Amino acid sequence: MPKEKTYSIGVDIGGTKMTGVLFDGAHAVADYTLATPKDDLVSFINVLVALIEPLKERAKKGRLKIKGIGLGIAGALDIPHGVILESPNLPVLDGFNIVEKLKERIEPEWETALDNDANCFTLAEARVGAGRKYQNIVGVTIGTGLGGGWYYEGRIYHGMNSSSREPGQLIIDHTTGLTTEQAFHKITQSNPAILAEEAYRGDPLAEKSFGEIATLLGSMFANIATILEPEMIVVGGGVVQSSDLFLNQATKTMAKYLFNPQTKKVKIVKAKLGPLAGAIGAALLIT
Amino acid sequence: MPKEKTYSIGVDIGGTKMTGVLFDGAHAVADYTLATPKDDLVSFINVLVALIEPLKERAKKGRLKIKGIGLGIAGALDIPHGVILESPNLPVLDGFNIVEKLKERIEPEWETALDNDANCFTLAEARVGAGRKYQNIVGVTIGTGLGGGWYYEGRIYHGMNSSSREPGQLIIDHTTGLTTEQAFHKITQSNPAILAEEAYRGDPLAEKSFGEIATLLGSMFANIATILEPEMIVVGGGVVQSSDLFLNQATKTMAKYLFNPQTKKVKIVKAKLGPLAGAIGAALLIT
Repeated sequence: MPKEKTYSIGVDIGGTKMTGVLFDGAHAVADYTLATPKDDLVSFINVLVALIEPLKERAKKGRLKIKGIGLGIAGALDIPHGVILESPNLPVLDGFNIVEKLKERIEPEWETALDNDANCFTLAEARVGAGRKYQNIVGVTIGTGLGGGWYYEGRIYHGMNSSSREPGQLIIDHTTGLTTEQAFHKITQSNPAILAEEAYRGDPLAEKSFGEIATLLGSMFANIATILEPEMIVVGGGVVQSSDLFLNQATKTMAKYLFNPQTKKVKIVKAKLGPLAGAIGAALLIT
Repeated sequence: MPKEKTYSIGVDIGGTKMTGVLFDGAHAVADYTLATPKDDLVSFINVLVALIEPLKERAKKGRLKIKGIGLGIAGALDIPHGVILESPNLPVLDGFNIVEKLKERIEPEWETALDNDANCFTLAEARVGAGRKYQNIVGVTIGTGLGGGWYYEGRIYHGMNSSSREPGQLIIDHTTGLTTEQAFHKITQSNPAILAEEAYRGDPLAEKSFGEIATLLGSMFANIATILEPEMIVVGGGVVQSSDLFLNQATKTMAKYLFNPQTKKVKIVKAKLGPLAGAIGAALLIT
């Protein structure tokens, strides 16, 4: 008799939309997306519950046993207590014990877990995505901002006090304290998607901006490689759709900026799981 | 009957001198220093053997059983095979299998080990120095250059391919690829000891330079905290004797440059073991 599969639900809570998946340990067997209410907590909870219900129904119809639910969200988190300390995109959630509320509103006996969204992305790509056959993997998400996480010895590394290890916060000018993410915002004017469209239309200024992005990201990859030297850096997030505009050059810049020939061996690869990666990683928090 | 102590010998091979210790698991019970011959391999080996012999004699007289010998040296190493791939300070050692030669010349049955000098410093401060009561520790050495290592889960983290994780190689200007260490060399004109003397004499230019050093190191500490968030960063190396000229300000700069209040909790502390730290860490490679 084959071993019974374990199912879990994962939800990626973004500033504009929330995506939920029903996950069977290897694949998303159902997914569902709703717009995120930003104005009040009651609406937020109601929509979150509305997102989860159809996935629960789907499991019930298939007689699939759900073990628990994981949530991924940007910001400062108190993971052991399930509390969102500070959410840059959804300030209405600041100080909210989302895990306790979910237990109350969904299924009290489900396991629950919470982690940073970029950590969830990294966990998903490491376990079932581009890093599947590797053990030491940094995930980097390039969207409006620059996030990241590190998968090492079978789990996400969190550091001592805070939940997220964001490469976008690496200082890139020691005299002013300018971060990599701030430099990225300056170049893209906080809208990399529009900049990419302009570059594809052949706008020389936009093309030049992507040259600058390549140098900036190459430098960030070099700094990650200097400290962590993982086997690979998996690059995802919305902007990876335009990776032909910058990723090769960023990889070359990384190699040029590194001294140690051994450290240059770090691979830079594109993510495999697409827009569901965050939700799949949230589901993988339940093991 | 008390448990018999295990003794080991550790040697810190520097560009100008070599220091050896006989180590009892907690303290150096004897230490010895000789100038490093730089010109030919035969003289180098003879002096290395001459450094070890009196420590071996000391153990023999005290009827102490030596388990093995560890070596610490700067540069790119092939640790599993005991080979020095590239030594910046002692190019005569490039490609040399130092561990094999030692076995042949000293005691074939001794255990042997090799690691980067900044990793040895970090291991010593983590196990028996300033980090004794902590588990997650970054060591930073400030001398002519900037070295470092990370102690996590009971051992030094090496990364996938190369042996050393040097924070001095963090890029601090993404447009040019300037590293933290290169910026440090520019400010100190590669002689921080003389610059410190000038600052203590009240030279305003030298004092200004130490302000720049504080900003540079604060930025480096912030980048280490962003990626690793250890409990503490232990700062050692020759320049730590002048730490009153820069360390407080560097710590403030780190806190100013970090966004996450949780990440700001990383402690910056001075090393405790003094100039023997590297040799003690080399001895600790034998366990």
